[in-house]
Amino acid sequence: MTEKKLKIAVVGLGTNGSMHFKQLQHMDSVEIIAVADPLIESRKETLNLSGIPLLTKDYHDILVNDEVAAIFFFTPSSQHLQNIADAAKAHKNIFCEKPLSKDGSIAECKATLEKVKEAGIKLQIGFNRRFDPQFKQIHERVKNGEIGTPQIVKVVARDPFVIPYDFIKNSGGLIQDFTAHDFDMLRYQAGSDIDEVFIESSILIDPKLAEFDDVDTLTASVKFKNGALGLIDESRKAVYGYDQRVEVFGPKGMLKAENVSKSTVEYYNEQNVALKKPLDYYLNRFEEAYLEEKSLFIKSVLEDLPVICTGEDALKAMCCSNAALESQKIGRPVKIQY
Amino acid sequence: MTEKKLKIAVVGLGTNGSMHFKQLQHMDSVEIIAVADPLIESRKETLNLSGIPLLTKDYHDILVNDEVAAIFFFTPSSQHLQNIADAAKAHKNIFCEKPLSKDGSIAECKATLEKVKEAGIKLQIGFNRRFDPQFKQIHERVKNGEIGTPQIVKVVARDPFVIPYDFIKNSGGLIQDFTAHDFDMLRYQAGSDIDEVFIESSILIDPKLAEFDDVDTLTASVKFKNGALGLIDESRKAVYGYDQRVEVFGPKGMLKAENVSKSTVEYYNEQNVALKKPLDYYLNRFEEAYLEEKSLFIKSVLEDLPVICTGEDALKAMCCSNAALESQKIGRPVKIQY
Amino acid sequence: MTEKKLKIAVVGLGTNGSMHFKQLQHMDSVEIIAVADPLIESRKETLNLSGIPLLTKDYHDILVNDEVAAIFFFTPSSQHLQNIADAAKAHKNIFCEKPLSKDGSIAECKATLEKVKEAGIKLQIGFNRRFDPQFKQIHERVKNGEIGTPQIVKVVARDPFVIPYDFIKNSGGLIQDFTAHDFDMLRYQAGSDIDEVFIESSILIDPKLAEFDDVDTLTASVKFKNGALGLIDESRKAVYGYDQRVEVFGPKGMLKAENVSKSTVEYYNEQNVALKKPLDYYLNRFEEAYLEEKSLFIKSVLEDLPVICTGEDALKAMCCSNAALESQKIGRPVKIQY
Amino acid sequence: MTEKKLKIAVVGLGTNGSMHFKQLQHMDSVEIIAVADPLIESRKETLNLSGIPLLTKDYHDILVNDEVAAIFFFTPSSQHLQNIADAAKAHKNIFCEKPLSKDGSIAECKATLEKVKEAGIKLQIGFNRRFDPQFKQIHERVKNGEIGTPQIVKVVARDPFVIPYDFIKNSGGLIQDFTAHDFDMLRYQAGSDIDEVFIESSILIDPKLAEFDDVDTLTASVKFKNGALGLIDESRKAVYGYDQRVEVFGPKGMLKAENVSKSTVEYYNEQNVALKKPLDYYLNRFEEAYLEEKSLFIKSVLEDLPVICTGEDALKAMCCSNAALESQKIGRPVKIQY
Repeated sequence: MTEKKLKIAVVGLGTNGSMHFKQLQHMDSVEIIAVADPLIESRKETLNLSGIPLLTKDYHDILVNDEVAAIFFFTPSSQHLQNIADAAKAHKNIFCEKPLSKDGSIAECKATLEKVKEAGIKLQIGFNRRFDPQFKQIHERVKNGEIGTPQIVKVVARDPFVIPYDFIKNSGGLIQDFTAHDFDMLRYQAGSDIDEVFIESSILIDPKLAEFDDVDTLTASVKFKNGALGLIDESRKAVYGYDQRVEVFGPKGMLKAENVSKSTVEYYNEQNVALKKPLDYYLNRFEEAYLEEKSLFIKSVLEDLPVICTGEDALKAMCCSNAALESQKIGRPVKIQY
Repeated sequence: MTEKKLKIAVVGLGTNGSMHFKQLQHMDSVEIIAVADPLIESRKETLNLSGIPLLTKDYHDILVNDEVAAIFFFTPSSQHLQNIADAAKAHKNIFCEKPLSKDGSIAECKATLEKVKEAGIKLQIGFNRRFDPQFKQIHERVKNGEIGTPQIVKVVARDPFVIPYDFIKNSGGLIQDFTAHDFDMLRYQAGSDIDEVFIESSILIDPKLAEFDDVDTLTASVKFKNGALGLIDESRKAVYGYDQRVEVFGPKGMLKAENVSKSTVEYYNEQNVALKKPLDYYLNRFEEAYLEEKSLFIKSVLEDLPVICTGEDALKAMCCSNAALESQKIGRPVKIQY
Repeated sequence: MTEKKLKIAVVGLGTNGSMHFKQLQHMDSVEIIAVADPLIESRKETLNLSGIPLLTKDYHDILVNDEVAAIFFFTPSSQHLQNIADAAKAHKNIFCEKPLSKDGSIAECKATLEKVKEAGIKLQIGFNRRFDPQFKQIHERVKNGEIGTPQIVKVVARDPFVIPYDFIKNSGGLIQDFTAHDFDMLRYQAGSDIDEVFIESSILIDPKLAEFDDVDTLTASVKFKNGALGLIDESRKAVYGYDQRVEVFGPKGMLKAENVSKSTVEYYNEQNVALKKPLDYYLNRFEEAYLEEKSLFIKSVLEDLPVICTGEDALKAMCCSNAALESQKIGRPVKIQY
Repeated sequence: MTEKKLKIAVVGLGTNGSMHFKQLQHMDSVEIIAVADPLIESRKETLNLSGIPLLTKDYHDILVNDEVAAIFFFTPSSQHLQNIADAAKAHKNIFCEKPLSKDGSIAECKATLEKVKEAGIKLQIGFNRRFDPQFKQIHERVKNGEIGTPQIVKVVARDPFVIPYDFIKNSGGLIQDFTAHDFDMLRYQAGSDIDEVFIESSILIDPKLAEFDDVDTLTASVKFKNGALGLIDESRKAVYGYDQRVEVFGPKGMLKAENVSKSTVEYYNEQNVALKKPLDYYLNRFEEAYLEEKSLFIKSVLEDLPVICTGEDALKAMCCSNAALESQKIGRPVKIQY
């Protein structure tokens, strides 16, 4: 049995990079022929890198390798824009973690996406939630017309615990770390761009967050260009697990995805009927989504199909986050500038 | 067996009044001794009014009846404030449908409530949803501390169909007709007053509503005085029934009430697993709530207990609606003036 | 407003009789004109009997009252057969609690039913579970053809606690007290008579039951005349409440009724997702069923419609119980003798 | 990174064998060093066998290979007993598909298990359902004491369609093919051996089955040695998918596993609320179970731990099936001979 495999490189083996790398190792459709990580030597202790021809500290070594057809970047957010520009110049197809850029201007992002376009390569940004089986099912059924054109779209996004302060400090805050994902989800489900956003936020969980000028509880109210309305609510700490829900309402009905526990066991006892809590973190809730986003990207490259989450999608999420930050600052709704 | 019964009068036998009247007829704790309605003669055709000593077109006849201990007003909204003032003057306990007033100023309302206070009588306003078994259960469990102090409170309120234009024209619009209920629910569940409100709204269902300067799809984003956040979403038409849900999230967990279908039957077939839709209208979804609100008011009067939904509660809902109307008009968040 | 009311008598005001009496008092379609109970004087302390023209210790006083159109018997099981014979002779329509007879022979029962037939009156036996909204919904949907001809029918019947020994001693044991209901439910849902029954049973909860020659845990395996199969499982003590479920499986699908809690509230917390337990006893689980069985009987009499649970149905349940007792004794399957 | 891998051989690459082989290829804990299949050449067209040192038509070539530590047999049922005897003689650890034997006598089976014992090797039989996450969760929680000692254990097992006649003819019929699994599940959950079994069965779906002396609809009623009771119901065709449920009831509560759909999406529309059907076949419902049974066997061998499903367990399931066949034939309950 022979099957066409895509020859790929992986750049960045941190927590998420390692998770992605292990998933890629078990995929039949790829062959990992190069890996780059500044700490490549110590990565060998925790990952099986044997049999991979090119191991390097510097990903530029990969750019010049003619055999590499696609590069997966799991690098720090601040490097994404440069990664994309470099890979585009080297004519490599690109899978890059979100966001498109952490501190770059919209203009810089547009310029980089222009280079990608000129290079004629595929670029997919890792908005993994689009590939979650539940949310993807809703998206497809909405597109199928099962509820008509969405009128109200709602996203719940609550983390199971306050992530480490060091991470929070470098995350760009709740809006850039969480809400960017949720703006993308709103657009993905509504089938319309966001026109205006209004943010309310509070510190109700951890007063220490004030030191980083951040918040832990937030709602966003949006209006889409087609007049539909959207709501997001977020918390940094839901004691019952990782709470990720989507609801889309339209003239013909409603589709809503409840949380995933993977357990169907019901325990009837003297107190109540107890079910298992939702899965406890993004690594297990979105395990299938992480696999699916890479599978579909690989398929897009191998069969020359459009990717599902483009650089333009990521750019639009950035525009929403920028407007949201402004709304949070001025306390009024803000129009999105695309 | 003898049991103390409260002697009451009922004023107004329209659609809702008739429903309330029939429920009162089956309650062991009351004796209906007077009924007033402008169309009292024709009401006899559809309601059993036999055995009731005083039947009149003009409720002022009831005010002077010494035996009547409490009056239930199911009159048009525009008359509520006058009804309350009249009954207070006559020292009758009052159950009055919401809202406190349709067009009256906050100052007028406050003055009337002052008279109620001076008269030393009970006044309960019919925010029936507080008495729904699901929403009341959540309220009591939140008060019990099961989730800690609420951080996010959410209300979904969607009607099953667009109500008749004649009713819409006189309803004060979606905000006064629907959102007032939902502001009351938010306060009831959050245990904190609303400080600020922001409205987004659209006409997505019925273009004809533009003629009445009304909308059919609306979201409200609120901040409570204690920093908690709230969200409301409303629609005039959910094809799957009357959609009324509440979710309260706090540091120790979440309580959420899903819709009520009264059916536990699951139908597994070739297509899917099908459950019954939510109940189809407020008259059946809130049947128990309507009964409970009256039972508890009667108990309050008989046992001299505080009522659960006071004139002040109704006044606060009005203040929220006023701010919401302003927010809708100016497109910015508005602070509530109490 | 005038509405035809059925003039009725109630005989027996014990625990169940009182419950039924109170429900009848609130029904618009009847007028209670006579009540009989050996302790009629003391019943006045707990029930409102005022305004009822005929109150008597001896129900024979009622038989001669020409105005009484129907009699409701809530008397001890051992009296049922005589009650029915007496009322039939007096040409009164009859609603009688199940069972048809406690110790009477099948021949005696058949003779009594023959008299009922000759008298041309209606007789309904109180197999209340047929009127439960969940089970009735399944019955109607099965009849509608939604799953095709049933192939497997299952009933779960578990009490919330071991009922008092005094009651158990006089109940005829688990098979006559519980399983008779469940045999009726199987027939009602399967649309076919039971041909053969096999019983397994144990004492696993309360060793004291051995003294009354009774058991606390039981399964029944049946084959219907049309070849369909049925299963029953019963327990005298489910700590999580009153467990009453039905499942019907056929060539086009499955209908199953889960327990009823009346709560849709979900509590997400650090341990699990907790729902309310099933309702805790037959008095609340079957409250609507008790109302419905009487309403439909009254309607049957007023409009001359067939009753839903006939004397023949009750006789067939007795035949099944008799065979089940024999199976339990000999440890083998037993054919039902009708 | 180095990690101890178990060197294994796979024998039999039919439908199930191929599925198992692919799962083994993706497991980090094993290295497949030999494969045997009568059609080994043509298997290369559909499976990736490259890099495997020993490929053979005859599994005896594997028995003499010193490097092979364990053999996985996915051979026809009729060969199992011989496979086990051969591998035991060669001192290889054994994973073998159920049943232990198709036509062998209990005495032959016992003799073979004795040889396994003498050889001091591990033998695990593939009763995959024990490893299903839902059923395993229940087993572990029952063992944890969450419901006390089980009093009633119930299994539902319904296939999504009538499997091909050729397979049915060679399967030993519904009792050997389905019920054997369910007897094992009953024992696994009850923690007690089955003492007596009674079978009812019918042909309600496919009259053609009469030609093979088989049935399509079956119930089993069992009594365990500790007095607990058990029920099984089976169908060859549930149009709504693969229906596999377990319920265990005890003095402290009930644990029940509903079917798995992997979807949490609810579709509210004009007709009803629609959920996804259960997964449609054993290959997807038990995908995780198939993986888990092999993982745990490999772990047992590598770490010298007891296996979870032994040859003795498989023997006991056979004894139950034999008694069930007898019960079906004579129409009476039959005691199990172990």
